[in-house]
Amino acid sequence: MPPYPPLIAALVDDVRAAAADAADAAARRHDALAKPRGSLGRLENVGARLSAAAGRCPPPVPSAPAVVVAAADHGVHAHGVTPWPQQITRLMVETICAGRAATSALARTVGAQVVVIDVGCVEPAADHPRLRRRRVRAGTADLVTGPAMTRDEAVRAVAAGSDVAGALIDGGADLLVTGDMGIANTTASACLVAACTGRAAADVTGPGAGADTQTLRRKIDLVDHALARHRPDPTDPLGLLAAVGGLEHAALVGVALAGAARRVPVVLDGVVTNAAALVAARLCPPVTGHLIAAHRSPEPGATAALAALGLSPLLDLGMRLGEGTGGLLAVPLIQAAARVLGEMAGIDDIIPT
Amino acid sequence: MPPYPPLIAALVDDVRAAAADAADAAARRHDALAKPRGSLGRLENVGARLSAAAGRCPPPVPSAPAVVVAAADHGVHAHGVTPWPQQITRLMVETICAGRAATSALARTVGAQVVVIDVGCVEPAADHPRLRRRRVRAGTADLVTGPAMTRDEAVRAVAAGSDVAGALIDGGADLLVTGDMGIANTTASACLVAACTGRAAADVTGPGAGADTQTLRRKIDLVDHALARHRPDPTDPLGLLAAVGGLEHAALVGVALAGAARRVPVVLDGVVTNAAALVAARLCPPVTGHLIAAHRSPEPGATAALAALGLSPLLDLGMRLGEGTGGLLAVPLIQAAARVLGEMAGIDDIIPT
Repeated sequence: MPPYPPLIAALVDDVRAAAADAADAAARRHDALAKPRGSLGRLENVGARLSAAAGRCPPPVPSAPAVVVAAADHGVHAHGVTPWPQQITRLMVETICAGRAATSALARTVGAQVVVIDVGCVEPAADHPRLRRRRVRAGTADLVTGPAMTRDEAVRAVAAGSDVAGALIDGGADLLVTGDMGIANTTASACLVAACTGRAAADVTGPGAGADTQTLRRKIDLVDHALARHRPDPTDPLGLLAAVGGLEHAALVGVALAGAARRVPVVLDGVVTNAAALVAARLCPPVTGHLIAAHRSPEPGATAALAALGLSPLLDLGMRLGEGTGGLLAVPLIQAAARVLGEMAGIDDIIPT
Repeated sequence: MPPYPPLIAALVDDVRAAAADAADAAARRHDALAKPRGSLGRLENVGARLSAAAGRCPPPVPSAPAVVVAAADHGVHAHGVTPWPQQITRLMVETICAGRAATSALARTVGAQVVVIDVGCVEPAADHPRLRRRRVRAGTADLVTGPAMTRDEAVRAVAAGSDVAGALIDGGADLLVTGDMGIANTTASACLVAACTGRAAADVTGPGAGADTQTLRRKIDLVDHALARHRPDPTDPLGLLAAVGGLEHAALVGVALAGAARRVPVVLDGVVTNAAALVAARLCPPVTGHLIAAHRSPEPGATAALAALGLSPLLDLGMRLGEGTGGLLAVPLIQAAARVLGEMAGIDDIIPT
């Protein structure tokens, strides 16, 4: 594996491992609160995770969530992997900016700021205060016939994500939800998950946003071909990102690294963000302690990626929309888990002596 | 079955069945929105349910949720069905009022008002602005050796719940979350679920707030004895509520009926609220269309009750605390489901012609 470029090396250096002693303190605190032991179930795991990521218990209660939707197009679209035209990526970026997408409705519900990074849509979206224009190239090249992008382009897309995330954190954001928009990006996600985990294409490739059986078979074949051609090296995460990834995956790697480096928890959405998180964790294993898996997408690659990351998703609602929608729904659960540790009475506080 | 007392008959008369045409309109609208069909998964079911309950699509977006925690004690506590002393009921009522319970932290997270009804704790709680004092009696009698309460007491407890819910709705509450507090109340819940569904005690009785194996066996035996003694008639829901229920179950029946009668959706929490909902649905089957199951409690009676109601819970986090905690976590999901139908662009709106 070549040495990391300076930007990525700096991010990786800043990521601290989750603090096991803070997780232990959370477990002890949970057991001492005015409730039956363990009765908050998985919420207690989230509280322990937040404590470990923050390095203290009780952890801060996130009050300013932001969803970062990374958007880009994919050369593999030419193979007919989806019924949706490529133009939809740009149209949906504009719909998100206009506040009329699914992620807009869900972000309003949980009080999250919405930012979209155009890191490489084929058609540039119109300017908008919510849009960050960080176009590395007008969509990736076809990953079946050659590398999706150069290693340098991948690094620049990572930088786009980390810059935008860093600016959000500078502005007060204290919880980052990852989101994606990119027609054909579940094919690239499947390639990344297969490359990182060694799993077969058929085990990690799903119908995405509506592929029929025949199209799904084609997707699986294409993923197989791409892996056979590139033979991506799982110990070279930047190399496999450049070979078979998407520009939005690279940007989301940057978001995850920047969040972890600043001790701001990063919430994963569906398969695209799960695949990006897997690459981030290969680049920098301690990043995993700063990630929270919001939900289980029905895409098989999502389950494979989360298993490889050792993360258990909180929600399982059959959602497969992307844009950060599943991630946003977990925001109140995460806030609740933090509040429990900071705000509840202990059982000894309430029983008269 | 005797005729219903006037108060209950009036509530039952006011409950309108969920409107199938509004649910159909929601399904059509979901398919026309700017997203892949079905990609919001279970959230789309919630949106259809809210539409049907409201009788219109898009449904109103709940903006003023309230959690109603019904609190009472249980004569069956004398049999040693739980490690917790009965005094805890009153202490936890005071802790909830003071804003230091689990439900307090979760209510703050989702912006919900908290109200506690003392419908029959053994020890009266101190006055507090969040407390509604509607004490029908100082705890139920022992349901193993006789009826837990008289039929008239059950009706008065239902009235307490419907009055408090009605006042909250008058004050602007547009989403009611049900909650409970009552040491030993999972034993009464198991009796109610068994009585309503015909299931065996062993299939609907769980460890509640921490019964060990021996105590659980005792609970199952007690439920068996109570059912054998009372032979509750599933077609006489008030009769079985009086025989083997709790005062908080009765109050929660009132909350469910009042919410449904006013077309305010009612969110169920764990097994105690599930058991109460089952009784409400036996009293008034159309009430079910106004209920939303927030989460699956690990108590087996919860799964049995939800199955009998035909409801699928949204969350499955292993939570078994009560107080409305699981119900509160579903509030943002419900708000999101309503927002999606009202706020998203249609796919035809965004594609240029």
